[in-house]
Amino acid sequence: MTVKERIAALRAGMKENGVDACVVFDSDEHMSEYLPAHYRERSWISGFTGSAGTVVVTAGAAGLWTDGRYYLQAGQQLSGSGITLYRASDAGVVSLVDYLLAAVPEGGVIALNGRVASTKMVLDLRRRCTEKNITLRTDLDLVGALWTEDRPGLPTASAFPYPEEYAGAPVKGKLALVREKMEKLRLDLYVVGALDSLCWLLNLRGSDVEISPLFTGFVVVGLEDAALFADPERVPEGLAASLAQAGVGIRPYGDIYRWVADLPGRARVGFSPRTVNAAVYDGLGDRVERVLLEDDIAEHLKMIKNHAELQHIRTAHKHDGVAMVRFLMWLEQARHSRLTEWNICEKLLELRSAQPEFKGLSFETIAGYGANGAIVHYEPTAQHCAELREGSFLLIDSGAQYLGGTTDLTRTIPLGEVPGSYRRDYTLVLKAFIRLQAARFPTGTTGRSLDVLARQVMWENYLDYKHGTGHGVGCYLNVHEGPNNFSDARVPFEEGMVISVEPGLYRAGQLGVRTENLVTVVRDRYSDEYGQFYRFEPLTLCPINTAAIEPGMLSREEAAWLNRYHSRVFEQLSPMLEPEERKWLGAATAPVHI
Amino acid sequence: MTVKERIAALRAGMKENGVDACVVFDSDEHMSEYLPAHYRERSWISGFTGSAGTVVVTAGAAGLWTDGRYYLQAGQQLSGSGITLYRASDAGVVSLVDYLLAAVPEGGVIALNGRVASTKMVLDLRRRCTEKNITLRTDLDLVGALWTEDRPGLPTASAFPYPEEYAGAPVKGKLALVREKMEKLRLDLYVVGALDSLCWLLNLRGSDVEISPLFTGFVVVGLEDAALFADPERVPEGLAASLAQAGVGIRPYGDIYRWVADLPGRARVGFSPRTVNAAVYDGLGDRVERVLLEDDIAEHLKMIKNHAELQHIRTAHKHDGVAMVRFLMWLEQARHSRLTEWNICEKLLELRSAQPEFKGLSFETIAGYGANGAIVHYEPTAQHCAELREGSFLLIDSGAQYLGGTTDLTRTIPLGEVPGSYRRDYTLVLKAFIRLQAARFPTGTTGRSLDVLARQVMWENYLDYKHGTGHGVGCYLNVHEGPNNFSDARVPFEEGMVISVEPGLYRAGQLGVRTENLVTVVRDRYSDEYGQFYRFEPLTLCPINTAAIEPGMLSREEAAWLNRYHSRVFEQLSPMLEPEERKWLGAATAPVHI
Repeated sequence: MTVKERIAALRAGMKENGVDACVVFDSDEHMSEYLPAHYRERSWISGFTGSAGTVVVTAGAAGLWTDGRYYLQAGQQLSGSGITLYRASDAGVVSLVDYLLAAVPEGGVIALNGRVASTKMVLDLRRRCTEKNITLRTDLDLVGALWTEDRPGLPTASAFPYPEEYAGAPVKGKLALVREKMEKLRLDLYVVGALDSLCWLLNLRGSDVEISPLFTGFVVVGLEDAALFADPERVPEGLAASLAQAGVGIRPYGDIYRWVADLPGRARVGFSPRTVNAAVYDGLGDRVERVLLEDDIAEHLKMIKNHAELQHIRTAHKHDGVAMVRFLMWLEQARHSRLTEWNICEKLLELRSAQPEFKGLSFETIAGYGANGAIVHYEPTAQHCAELREGSFLLIDSGAQYLGGTTDLTRTIPLGEVPGSYRRDYTLVLKAFIRLQAARFPTGTTGRSLDVLARQVMWENYLDYKHGTGHGVGCYLNVHEGPNNFSDARVPFEEGMVISVEPGLYRAGQLGVRTENLVTVVRDRYSDEYGQFYRFEPLTLCPINTAAIEPGMLSREEAAWLNRYHSRVFEQLSPMLEPEERKWLGAATAPVHI
Repeated sequence: MTVKERIAALRAGMKENGVDACVVFDSDEHMSEYLPAHYRERSWISGFTGSAGTVVVTAGAAGLWTDGRYYLQAGQQLSGSGITLYRASDAGVVSLVDYLLAAVPEGGVIALNGRVASTKMVLDLRRRCTEKNITLRTDLDLVGALWTEDRPGLPTASAFPYPEEYAGAPVKGKLALVREKMEKLRLDLYVVGALDSLCWLLNLRGSDVEISPLFTGFVVVGLEDAALFADPERVPEGLAASLAQAGVGIRPYGDIYRWVADLPGRARVGFSPRTVNAAVYDGLGDRVERVLLEDDIAEHLKMIKNHAELQHIRTAHKHDGVAMVRFLMWLEQARHSRLTEWNICEKLLELRSAQPEFKGLSFETIAGYGANGAIVHYEPTAQHCAELREGSFLLIDSGAQYLGGTTDLTRTIPLGEVPGSYRRDYTLVLKAFIRLQAARFPTGTTGRSLDVLARQVMWENYLDYKHGTGHGVGCYLNVHEGPNNFSDARVPFEEGMVISVEPGLYRAGQLGVRTENLVTVVRDRYSDEYGQFYRFEPLTLCPINTAAIEPGMLSREEAAWLNRYHSRVFEQLSPMLEPEERKWLGAATAPVHI
């Protein structure tokens, strides 16, 4: 079937069901960042395979909305499909929702697969639909009905237990914390949609997607017992037995929708509208009291790493640091031998793979030389990658999954001599990176409040970077986790949070600079009058290039911070290095003077 | 009637109406910061006259909740009344709402006067009441029924027109802007509760309270016409005629509640739950569609000052600056003659009164010497005021209403030599004050994002100040206006906003330091890549004491900012001064060197 044939078949299905417009996206039933191939309905219907994009099909037209990263790819992949490309990042381009509302007649019907749409998205869209008395149906999977041949199956690999020594708390204890919050919110039931929350709560991991150790299922927590909705064959006996001991029964994955439909009325059921899908929401209906949790219980608990988790996270960062030191040393020597960006990715993987408890990458390595460094989501492949040359920056953003933790760091390396303007950009980013990490702040401070400490360095120079300054990071889980980040104005920093600090600066067509550490929030001094103060402690252990620093631009305090950080890196990594590596690290972490 | 008798009478009224608990507060029907004496029901029932406090009366008990500022006063005024004082600022003290929920039986009834309670407050309380199936009635004014003798009447003074030359836009034009937003929100009607929004929208002012030039009424804006609900006798003929020309009819004040009750169903009525009272909300009922506006239309429009307003605001600040220069000069000479804090208030009023277009103070002058400076809401009176001595700070926070604008500034003046630790505190505040005012920021930045630029100076030293860093300011209206301030994370800065910058530092029992300017947001450079950048421009023109600066603590940039500010003050004020004053100002604004 060609894309044209697929869209024609979809239109037939729409007509049969009285649907005026159908919205199709790539998403699983848990709003995951990475998803199994089974769920790529939008890729299948349109032929466009990028990670972001939504298709709208009406009787007379079809369109794809995607952002600036994918204009080129989408243009190529949509060619000849009859699907119009809407460049969603450009000013003046009609938004998908406005298009829908214009295209569908008063009193018409829009359909989307509610199992792969968040409750939040459906409620927002439905609110807009009232303007024209449009019905938004979530109970039709029109694409799924067509995509039967050669559709990849659901994941089949088994879950495996995450040792309590690493998790730091038994499932029973975690469930007790969840129930404490449920009682405060007077919930009878709490539904977990997010897969990382499931894995955290039940002390298990899986391998359902390539990048994160996730296992697919739903959890429903009651005040006395709990249920894991997941393919029972994928839960090994020992794991099932230990879950049973914690009061967690197992029911088939798809049964969640039957459970939802059968739930007796009057129950108070809480869940996050961001991670629980609209089929669950609509299935529950008005019979039960649906409590949309702005602060998802498991997500909030997971965000605070406990003592055992932090201990293993620190160890993971040491191993990752050793791999990085070996990589940087290798790069210094190998860079004269016609390397490509892909060679960088391969070498990093090779060195990380040799580290204890290495489990895989935590995201596809970004290694961009020169102008490629300015493409924020650039991912070289063996087929598409540039050769490294002299005179510009190599930006490397990479990380790994270790049994004890998830790493994510960015370093920008000058290859050969770089111009003064490059050094100034590099130093601006370094200043931003240091100023935010050096912050001290009282109880109640949120990410949004501190963000400007990094950005003001840019703003002073009429510059900025068009991405967040940092995100929460899981513990052998997702490299991006919420709700804490440097844009958030609701969740105050607490001891035990892990978050990235990653300001950058990008000159399109020329260069990209980004420097990133993961940090954890630790207690600083307590003041009788102003309460507890906190600060950040770097977890990432990897030297920061000092050759590219523009002399005179760092303040005395900034230079002192850098020197303290470098002593720490040397102190913690050198016992794990060979003499020659130790010598290299000593030179790489030598104090800078201003 | 004694307080005991009043409470007994209230209990009789409660019993008669089947009410288990009655909540009483001092508030008008518009949630105003300052209110006519007529509305002080809580003061009347309890004898406690402070500006903050709520009384709860049940059959068996009575309590007053107030904050730390008023513990002493409340303790004295409640003595012998049988009313228990709840120190609401202290840890572990039961909150008023928790108390209510514990005191009222399952299925019981709480009553409050819905005309003087915000919709937001009632909805929040009602949400909590569902826990125990408690009914919250807003239709009983039990205190009002008792307080008949010697109750002050409602204000009687007439409204007066605010000249269009000052307002910068005709009423018709403002109504058109309101209707534009109404159409976007698909509102049929929009209710204005806040008095400053009313005055702004209808280009009028009044004198219903002492401090702000407010006039009492409600406005209802329809898509074609509008109504002012206000005592018709208080609207002079000429003003009424010009309002009529703009399509604004006049109806008696109290008719708003009849209008609400008579409104036919299906209308979409929008209003702010913060400033429209619960009697309006409950009166509208479910018949109509009540749209609770998080962003109140008139408040948002009013926050952006137009060209004419800004021009007059600048002039007002010049006049205020001249008065301040004369005051500071006088203080230098007079301070050896046994002055009191009250003398400071009197002298400031005298000098301001002599300025053109002076209309009164914009709030009660705060003049605190030494330890009194640490009391954030300290207001000396002729009877209660300290004598000025040598060796500490005099903190003066004051402002005035001019026909063209509202001023508000704080200066901290060392009297004689102050210790080094005082100078360090003074300089920390000055650094915070400068760093925030020197900020440059792009489109989309909100107050919350910039707040840390001031606070980090404190946080670095394990210090803080327990108040906001700044608030929006009206134009010949309220000195505190929303929604923009430095805590807000929703409303981005826009050209034409006026906001205060006022970090402080307080050592209880010892000293207080605060330095405050009003600033306006102006366009800085435009960047093709990052859009419009903005910065703050000081409106306040008054020298900042340089004698108290601790040498070496200001950075080069901070000193340069201060010197630029002082040149500006000299440049703008000196043409309006006598030669001797000009000479004094020249010395007071001489550049500092670091």
